[in-house]
Amino acid sequence: MDIREYIEDISRRAKEASVPLRFTRAGEKNRALLLVSELMRKNTTRILEANKKDLERGEASGLTAAFLERLALNSERVEAMAVSVEEIAALEDPVGEVSGVRRPQGFILQKVRVPIGVVAMIFESRPNVTVDAAALCLKSGNAVILRGGKEALQSNLVLASLIREGIGNAGISPDSVQLVERQEHEGVSLLVKQSGLVDLVIPRGGEKLIRAVVEEATVPVIKHYRGVCHLYVDAAADLRMAADVVYNAKVQRPATCNAIETLLVNSRIAEDFLPAVQKKLERVELRGCKKTKTILPDIKEAAEEDYYAEYLDLILAVRIVDSVEEAAAHIERYGSAHTDGIISSGLEAVEKFVDSVDSAVVTVNASTRLSDGGIFGLGAEIGISTDKLHARGPMGIGELTTCKWVVRGDGHIRS
Amino acid sequence: MDIREYIEDISRRAKEASVPLRFTRAGEKNRALLLVSELMRKNTTRILEANKKDLERGEASGLTAAFLERLALNSERVEAMAVSVEEIAALEDPVGEVSGVRRPQGFILQKVRVPIGVVAMIFESRPNVTVDAAALCLKSGNAVILRGGKEALQSNLVLASLIREGIGNAGISPDSVQLVERQEHEGVSLLVKQSGLVDLVIPRGGEKLIRAVVEEATVPVIKHYRGVCHLYVDAAADLRMAADVVYNAKVQRPATCNAIETLLVNSRIAEDFLPAVQKKLERVELRGCKKTKTILPDIKEAAEEDYYAEYLDLILAVRIVDSVEEAAAHIERYGSAHTDGIISSGLEAVEKFVDSVDSAVVTVNASTRLSDGGIFGLGAEIGISTDKLHARGPMGIGELTTCKWVVRGDGHIRS
Repeated sequence: MDIREYIEDISRRAKEASVPLRFTRAGEKNRALLLVSELMRKNTTRILEANKKDLERGEASGLTAAFLERLALNSERVEAMAVSVEEIAALEDPVGEVSGVRRPQGFILQKVRVPIGVVAMIFESRPNVTVDAAALCLKSGNAVILRGGKEALQSNLVLASLIREGIGNAGISPDSVQLVERQEHEGVSLLVKQSGLVDLVIPRGGEKLIRAVVEEATVPVIKHYRGVCHLYVDAAADLRMAADVVYNAKVQRPATCNAIETLLVNSRIAEDFLPAVQKKLERVELRGCKKTKTILPDIKEAAEEDYYAEYLDLILAVRIVDSVEEAAAHIERYGSAHTDGIISSGLEAVEKFVDSVDSAVVTVNASTRLSDGGIFGLGAEIGISTDKLHARGPMGIGELTTCKWVVRGDGHIRS
Repeated sequence: MDIREYIEDISRRAKEASVPLRFTRAGEKNRALLLVSELMRKNTTRILEANKKDLERGEASGLTAAFLERLALNSERVEAMAVSVEEIAALEDPVGEVSGVRRPQGFILQKVRVPIGVVAMIFESRPNVTVDAAALCLKSGNAVILRGGKEALQSNLVLASLIREGIGNAGISPDSVQLVERQEHEGVSLLVKQSGLVDLVIPRGGEKLIRAVVEEATVPVIKHYRGVCHLYVDAAADLRMAADVVYNAKVQRPATCNAIETLLVNSRIAEDFLPAVQKKLERVELRGCKKTKTILPDIKEAAEEDYYAEYLDLILAVRIVDSVEEAAAHIERYGSAHTDGIISSGLEAVEKFVDSVDSAVVTVNASTRLSDGGIFGLGAEIGISTDKLHARGPMGIGELTTCKWVVRGDGHIRS
């Protein structure tokens, strides 16, 4: 079978599996998920052996320590994956929610929440994404095609086979979850063009991977390019709160997409605030604009590209601005429309910021790190969308569904 | 300016205009729309003169009568466009709707309805699309880039200039509505790749245009490929109602996307129903399967491609099936997931059909022609989506908005 036939075959199987999933009851899906979780626990040794092969091959081929760390499983991580599947089983089923109205003509118009159909996940090396994506898609009634990185192939093969065994035992088609086993790059290009079979592509990984997918896809894509998040400390800010929130937003987990990369400071409080924040952020490398450097002369000057950078590290760009408008304009120009916040006690400044900043999440006197599906009460995330269509910000199982209109008449016609 | 710079310039202006539109109040937007409507009425002669130029050029270049009919304006059609703008002004503003909850950590989480940003409409020859799209986008707080067919260029130039004058008089940036005046085909290819400036592309026209846009776009596209709609007449149908509904769905306006193209008839009632429906549909050419032909021997036999066809004409494919399942499988295979219906008094058959058929709109004992934004109470339509993401089925101003999350804390951090 050539790669084209292989991808078409997988897509067709997924589409077929998606049909009965449309009306599989919540109880059946949950039972399947609990069987998967149980199988993962029972087969921990097998999972770890496969993962060991991936790690050995990865070391031999010179993968970085950070990469190997993301790839590595141990019994705690397997247990965490099993727990995650149980937590997804415990979420409320978003499918089947109905709202309706009787229209003036007398027919009943209903809007019914239904699964999207077939989701293709394209991701890199974390084996837990395999498990989470499969569980979230199954929970929301979608068939899923998983295309993980080749570095995790042995781990993913075992995980996918356990998932398929579990859902098969629950009477659900194993083709509801399929792993793309062949690693030709062309497979990805073909997968994202299966209009009519695949309904949605979710790429997760570096910006380069995501841009390549968007460039080639004819199937709709929901994505998250980058997280260049900002905090703006207003003239009317409580400076102690500001320092605490900035610290949390930068330092608590700098490698996450909702950590801040640039700090914007109002010029009226810059002389008070910047020395305090420098002291608080002692482990962080600051890179400042010219005005910032007059206050903090020992720091490096920020280049233009620093304001575009997603450091994902203990580095923070700093710029002094004169107003909310200037802060909003900076965010519009350099930001990624992910999560941006203001620290201020001034009502007018806050409302102007909230209105002007066109990001998926806007925070007021709060850390950007709160921008998270779990914290928002959506349950486990399939991703964070910096798109504006369909899903914006943290994307849970609700966002893996769509609606269907149902017209219930009694011989109603159009006149 | 080369075409690349020209399209980038338009896109950048649209993006800039979209910023203040985010918080332009409903009253201002409505005032602008009423000024546009007034200007259109006052300038009817100018509009008709420009339209005459398009028609003359169109005739000279050999456009079909049907094409010229779609392109042609007269004073009634100008009045209808002006009224349409007033009706859009009278719709409730979808922007600014807020829902919220206090999360257990104590911060307030709000979901706010906001404009999408910049919409690019790519369409063919109807000048009323220019006006409707501009009005619907402005109403929902979006800047719009209009790229109409070259056949309507003179009409569109006058209409766009009146729209820009009207909204300018209301204090809204004229760049909120821009017409792509240059007609190089490359302009479309460039426009649909303006990620970061353009947020959404809506192509309206033939399937070929839409597929070309999808193939090239990196910006998200919402589209409607085809309307291959079905009615399935079940064994338990009221046959008189069935004939009336089939008649309405096929004959009332056969050129619309929600008219039916294929009739599926349960084998148990086929001998009773088909002769009656043939009589009722006397103006319609029937093309039947082999079994249908044993009952209606004088009709043409349907070829495989008839079941995929969007006739948009007084032609109807007919197939006899043995069950709801077989009907649903036919619709899944040949349909376009637009609007499909069942005629039945049997509860089990109805619910099985509603669950199984994965179309934007499913009708029960009602004409597929009811699948319409106006009939559904959404107001004027910007289009009908056969996509599953963001908008499904009739797409009104609500679907031209997205949401933004706002976190309102008091120094809240992630722990």
